[in-house]
Amino acid sequence: MGKKRFMLPMEEVDFTTVKYDHEVITAPRLTGFGLKLFVWICEAPLLGSLLMSYLKKKNKITEKLQYTVIPERPMFRPEFPPQEPEPGVITMEKDSTPTTRVQSALKCLPPYDPACGWTSDSSPFLYWKIRDFAHAYRSSSVTPSMVAEYIISGVEEFNNKNPPMPLLISFSAEDVRNQAEASTQRFKEGKPLSILDGIFMAIKDDIDCYPHPTKGATTWFHEVRPIKQDAVCVSRLRSCGVILIGKANMHELGLGTTGNNPNYGTTRNPHALERYTGGSSSGPAAIVAAGLCSAALGTDGGGSVRIPSSLCGVVGLKTTYGRTDMEGSLCDCGTVEIIGPIAATVEDVMLVYATILGPSPSDEYILNPWFNDVYSTDISDRCENVLSMLSKNHGCKTIEVVIPELHEMRTSHIVAIGSESACSLFPDYIAGNAAKLTHDTRINLALFRAFSASDYVAAARLRRRIMYYHMEIFKNVDIIVTPTTGMTAPIIPPSSLQFGETNLQDSGYLMRFIITANLLGLPAITVPVGHDKQGLPIGLQLIGRPWAEATILRLASAVEELCVDSRKRPSTFYDVLKVK
Amino acid sequence: MGKKRFMLPMEEVDFTTVKYDHEVITAPRLTGFGLKLFVWICEAPLLGSLLMSYLKKKNKITEKLQYTVIPERPMFRPEFPPQEPEPGVITMEKDSTPTTRVQSALKCLPPYDPACGWTSDSSPFLYWKIRDFAHAYRSSSVTPSMVAEYIISGVEEFNNKNPPMPLLISFSAEDVRNQAEASTQRFKEGKPLSILDGIFMAIKDDIDCYPHPTKGATTWFHEVRPIKQDAVCVSRLRSCGVILIGKANMHELGLGTTGNNPNYGTTRNPHALERYTGGSSSGPAAIVAAGLCSAALGTDGGGSVRIPSSLCGVVGLKTTYGRTDMEGSLCDCGTVEIIGPIAATVEDVMLVYATILGPSPSDEYILNPWFNDVYSTDISDRCENVLSMLSKNHGCKTIEVVIPELHEMRTSHIVAIGSESACSLFPDYIAGNAAKLTHDTRINLALFRAFSASDYVAAARLRRRIMYYHMEIFKNVDIIVTPTTGMTAPIIPPSSLQFGETNLQDSGYLMRFIITANLLGLPAITVPVGHDKQGLPIGLQLIGRPWAEATILRLASAVEELCVDSRKRPSTFYDVLKVK
Repeated sequence: MGKKRFMLPMEEVDFTTVKYDHEVITAPRLTGFGLKLFVWICEAPLLGSLLMSYLKKKNKITEKLQYTVIPERPMFRPEFPPQEPEPGVITMEKDSTPTTRVQSALKCLPPYDPACGWTSDSSPFLYWKIRDFAHAYRSSSVTPSMVAEYIISGVEEFNNKNPPMPLLISFSAEDVRNQAEASTQRFKEGKPLSILDGIFMAIKDDIDCYPHPTKGATTWFHEVRPIKQDAVCVSRLRSCGVILIGKANMHELGLGTTGNNPNYGTTRNPHALERYTGGSSSGPAAIVAAGLCSAALGTDGGGSVRIPSSLCGVVGLKTTYGRTDMEGSLCDCGTVEIIGPIAATVEDVMLVYATILGPSPSDEYILNPWFNDVYSTDISDRCENVLSMLSKNHGCKTIEVVIPELHEMRTSHIVAIGSESACSLFPDYIAGNAAKLTHDTRINLALFRAFSASDYVAAARLRRRIMYYHMEIFKNVDIIVTPTTGMTAPIIPPSSLQFGETNLQDSGYLMRFIITANLLGLPAITVPVGHDKQGLPIGLQLIGRPWAEATILRLASAVEELCVDSRKRPSTFYDVLKVK
Repeated sequence: MGKKRFMLPMEEVDFTTVKYDHEVITAPRLTGFGLKLFVWICEAPLLGSLLMSYLKKKNKITEKLQYTVIPERPMFRPEFPPQEPEPGVITMEKDSTPTTRVQSALKCLPPYDPACGWTSDSSPFLYWKIRDFAHAYRSSSVTPSMVAEYIISGVEEFNNKNPPMPLLISFSAEDVRNQAEASTQRFKEGKPLSILDGIFMAIKDDIDCYPHPTKGATTWFHEVRPIKQDAVCVSRLRSCGVILIGKANMHELGLGTTGNNPNYGTTRNPHALERYTGGSSSGPAAIVAAGLCSAALGTDGGGSVRIPSSLCGVVGLKTTYGRTDMEGSLCDCGTVEIIGPIAATVEDVMLVYATILGPSPSDEYILNPWFNDVYSTDISDRCENVLSMLSKNHGCKTIEVVIPELHEMRTSHIVAIGSESACSLFPDYIAGNAAKLTHDTRINLALFRAFSASDYVAAARLRRRIMYYHMEIFKNVDIIVTPTTGMTAPIIPPSSLQFGETNLQDSGYLMRFIITANLLGLPAITVPVGHDKQGLPIGLQLIGRPWAEATILRLASAVEELCVDSRKRPSTFYDVLKVK
């Protein structure tokens, strides 16, 4: 018999008495045989239920969702209070074409100067930006077809590395050549479709990109879900002339934060090959960090865009829930997922996102003690350092606050994303395809199956509380600033390569600051701000008000500029504009 | 291992090929010792899960929610497409006071003529309407205090009947006298608050009515949820001068359709004392049918207003989801429940609902084969008879259609209401209060606990499909017409009085036509249209488009007029205006 708990009505919670409470996750860290045995127990009819029930109890999920009287009505997906328009934002017509929208976004950027910036040979940071490619194509110094050949060789080179680094799950050199040729032809005729014409991008394997199969990095999902066309987001890119090079690697079905993938091999961090990229959008982040693509599309339901972007030292944008069209992605039925761009710079993320950057910087943002709950103080030190610079150079005011009920937030999120994933996968699970999933995924599904319908409703009630607290905080600040992750890229245990691994502790560190934006649907961006003592990238996260992508992009741009000298190219950087 | 099923995307479902499929429910019918044993099994840790898993499978819940690929996004609560305004409706200011609104509603009625209609002695149907009371009070022939005394005696008389008929769970003669005296005083001073001043009403025991405790017909709920004020709906009635006589009996926590209640005794049907009233608003419907109150408030999450209204031969309105304020009721967190009025006539329901009746009748409504899936053909014959009359006298056009996926609709509804109830009750359940619930409730909770979070998400996906089908149908018709229930009042097995009973077969018949309006949040009304061969009342249900209360009230009024001669007073009718 349990002890009944009561929560105060959310309006009566006194923020000043809230204390930050470090999170402790109880779950075994397993690879190899131990992992296989654990999966067997998880899936055993009675033993499995008992174990899951124990884990739910031990991690206080039972207490939070079943023993507690939560006075609020459920909020099943983000419900935003009405928002003031962002200051100085240029509004785009709802039904404007993607090419018109990219064109508007372009006009928000400072004028392009080919002689300076990151393309100059003197900079240690040598990513080619979209406008560098565009300039090169337009000055006829290089054609998309020429770049295509370098990329095709590059993909092969990464595949043949020792250890191999499988960036893409589906790739066709011929398809890339055909697209590049068409683009080259358009430039020849002086009729490029947009600034994005001839720009190379990769698409995460859970977003449809015809004619590639969508496997979600499983071995079989394309057989039960054949595709006939591009996802909506992908077709928009294609209409702007983007060259889609193939389907990027990922954590199976997006259900993990490392990017470990026994099916197709684990993508390695371009900054340190013995380390994870983070996940689940491992391939998209790595392919951008390695210099092979200007940008990539990922999905983010629990940090899957931001975590790998942060760990690989690139920029990743999680858009407001409902901002990007999810049609044609594997997670189109969820209440926490969005599709978001990953690129080397804020400018490129903005162009791909094709929205508008407001002219005025934010006045206030916040920092909180959560900030310091990280694996190594390198992260928090660096992030605080950036905040001081922002304050000094841009006059931003810092307010320190504590957000109530962070544990409840995590519980609410795992129940939402887990149950929604389980629902989508169940028919296949029951039809016997479970055995074809990786052990990691199977353990996750066993946990997700243990959530009850009443847990789901209780989690939705918690969501209403967490939304309320954040909207209260956003009355005083424009942006919430945190480190993106609580640790930099973790090492890949060699024993995990064949069967995967389960490691909820690392997962906890990686997701520590991530899920606010997912559970509440808020926009968030990660910007690289430097490296830790081991030379691994550190990301800073900016979380904005609902629909305030423009505001966070603007501040991200300021952060990027302040940190430009602290960034560096990974050792594996592959220069696709060698032709220069 | 199960067989994976696929559903066609909802837009591709061909309505013309849909066949009506009779529902078969597998569950034992139990009372007495068998019932107690069954509860023990249901709650036993392992045996219970196995049994629930068997019942879920046997009733195809598992197949529908876990084996099936449902292509739609979940709809967690009713999402209505934009609606055309109802023709000829008078719009009320959103922030007008209850008294202003009742006044506007009053102006929509035909002029009052004290000499004719149901108050005339020659009519076999002798319910006093709200306007009859109002006239009597204003002509000083009778005062609220005089009526109060008759009602106080009446309540006592019903309690002392053999068998007893407990209409109210909480009642204070003194409190009624005080309210009546205040009202009498207002009339003396010529300052009645509204047409509802001095009108006697009962409130279902799951809606707060200060100073009465809110028990939800349990023995203990008021201890864990003390109340300090009226529910919002109740305070509105009070501000109009309504005299609130107490808390009406109900099925424990609203989790049943008969009204059986071992805690406070089972309310009996005023038309046949050996039969159920239907539930869960057993007391509210019976107290109105017996003539003791002009109206009552009930809650309806699965027919709880309409089923007992139909079985007791009175009118019950289920409002559009979100139309009535749920604050201060036990089911204020659900996605299917509303608060709705029960009264003897459509006119009184309309006055209590205090909304506006459009001048133009509906042009089209539909009839479907569902219509005939009833326990006795008396019901369907009588309902078809009414439709012919409507067609003849009002020129209504009848279109016969089949609605796809009715079984899925029932599954989606039981999972939604069950999980939401379980969520609200869990903290107490776990704190050891389960044993204080009736056996019937405990069996329901055991089933509800067996629903998984992924079941809940799948049920929400089904909800989107069902909404789509109905919105397609409403493109061609104004109102969907069905019998209210698939059977008239069932007999109360004497063995069920002490420990209750579980009888999902009867429940199935009672809820057959009910849940569309709950799952989709549509407005619906039940109007008595006559009696079966055993003399038991038959109700006709009108289901309207979202927010179209005015339209269904208008047609209900036409039906009422056509059927006035077929109605009769119950044998237990108690005349509270004997003074006349």
